[in-house]
Amino acid sequence: MPYYGYFNGVITPVDQIGVGVTDLGLLRGYGLFDYFLTYGGKPFQWDLYWARFQRSAERMNLPLPLTKEQTYPILMDLLARSGQPDVAFRFLMTGGYAPDSISIVTPNLLILSEPIHPTPDWQYERGIRVILDEYVREMAEVKSTDYKRVMLLNSTIREAGAQDVLYHKDGEISELSRSNIFLVIGNRLVTPNRNILYGVTRRTILDLAKADFQLEKRPVLLSDLYEANEVFTTSTNKKVLPIVHIGDLQIADGQVGPVSKQLLARFHAFTGKQ
Amino acid sequence: MPYYGYFNGVITPVDQIGVGVTDLGLLRGYGLFDYFLTYGGKPFQWDLYWARFQRSAERMNLPLPLTKEQTYPILMDLLARSGQPDVAFRFLMTGGYAPDSISIVTPNLLILSEPIHPTPDWQYERGIRVILDEYVREMAEVKSTDYKRVMLLNSTIREAGAQDVLYHKDGEISELSRSNIFLVIGNRLVTPNRNILYGVTRRTILDLAKADFQLEKRPVLLSDLYEANEVFTTSTNKKVLPIVHIGDLQIADGQVGPVSKQLLARFHAFTGKQ
Repeated sequence: MPYYGYFNGVITPVDQIGVGVTDLGLLRGYGLFDYFLTYGGKPFQWDLYWARFQRSAERMNLPLPLTKEQTYPILMDLLARSGQPDVAFRFLMTGGYAPDSISIVTPNLLILSEPIHPTPDWQYERGIRVILDEYVREMAEVKSTDYKRVMLLNSTIREAGAQDVLYHKDGEISELSRSNIFLVIGNRLVTPNRNILYGVTRRTILDLAKADFQLEKRPVLLSDLYEANEVFTTSTNKKVLPIVHIGDLQIADGQVGPVSKQLLARFHAFTGKQ
Repeated sequence: MPYYGYFNGVITPVDQIGVGVTDLGLLRGYGLFDYFLTYGGKPFQWDLYWARFQRSAERMNLPLPLTKEQTYPILMDLLARSGQPDVAFRFLMTGGYAPDSISIVTPNLLILSEPIHPTPDWQYERGIRVILDEYVREMAEVKSTDYKRVMLLNSTIREAGAQDVLYHKDGEISELSRSNIFLVIGNRLVTPNRNILYGVTRRTILDLAKADFQLEKRPVLLSDLYEANEVFTTSTNKKVLPIVHIGDLQIADGQVGPVSKQLLARFHAFTGKQ
């Protein structure tokens, strides 16, 4: 069965949706999105994802055309039509169609169901490598569609045998291109608290870890990486994914560590209870 | 007659073009464009616009699917179908459809014909007002679709009774949201030479002025504005448009000056010879 999507009130197969060429997402990069999964047929952390989408829309001055209560049945409808037990959902909202190619009239809202693309097993087993890039995303706390930077770095990442990029600026690290970062230093879990997109998985991991770890949400320096016993990244799709090399630096012995494994197991257990 | 557009080899009325939802322009803001007019049925400064589009595409690692020679007849076809003596053309190229929502496979190229929206007469007669914003566009020299900043400032601009924004950083001015800036200081024409999109109209005006003015292409400071007898902005659509207020500063006596008028007249004469 095809995957279905909702576009301004109409539900059709995703590959039949066509966005007109005066859309401000296309013409002016004026768009925001969010992305989340279902587990056991239910949207995982639905309250948190919706709240973030709502905040992003507010920050971009785009009024949401649907309430949370109106949106949930649409998700359930799209899931049912997919014929799958679980799907990924993507919200995409743009500035809408602009007759003059610049003025916002009515936003366009898309809700798309998609197949889930799991992160490959080998990445959990061996950990990933990331390159460094001096950069802070504009309005990092808003889940806008602005990913020019990582797209331009794609070949550099590939040539370095890496999988992603870690942004830093003025000696301070912030986030990977589409995920957050944690350092394990002894019994402390350290994660940046500014210039980042506040990940729902980041927050979930902080909750799941708080009984056993000292949590430090604070500015984190590049030099803090030298102290780290483990580093991992968190996101909707990556869950808890170990990072073993950052630029020229090997993290500790370059192996996936026990804390990353333990937190991934806790995360799996938590999603299983959904 | 409707306006027509070209999309990956197919020509249809513009309002029938639908871009699929896995397009990286939509999903990731990964797109570039260009925009130019015909005068007397011919694309004005075609060589310069094409060269800029080509450079922008290169900088974004997107291979152009058409040569200049293949593109020109498409423009002529679109113009003829419009039934208009002159049109605006918009190139729009994105990272194309990405099954995984991030990887570039084949770019999408659109060539759209559009009605020309002339800048209102009153703006030439009275000059425009702009607000100030501390900002430099990422990759300013590339005509990417990244216009989040000005879209977010739209209501601030309106509330200030202004028409646009002048970007500056560390005391240095660069450009308006979609056009270049010139200062007239005595017999000198001063225009920023970095952190800008190198406008074709900017270059045309520099050519048209060089016999009678001393040209200074250099970093320009906010404080240089105090010295200016006139300020104007240039772009494809604005041509030579006087600016009479910048933030709280009135330029000279707040009236449209003779140099702006003279250069606009020269520009009109030049386009008339097309």
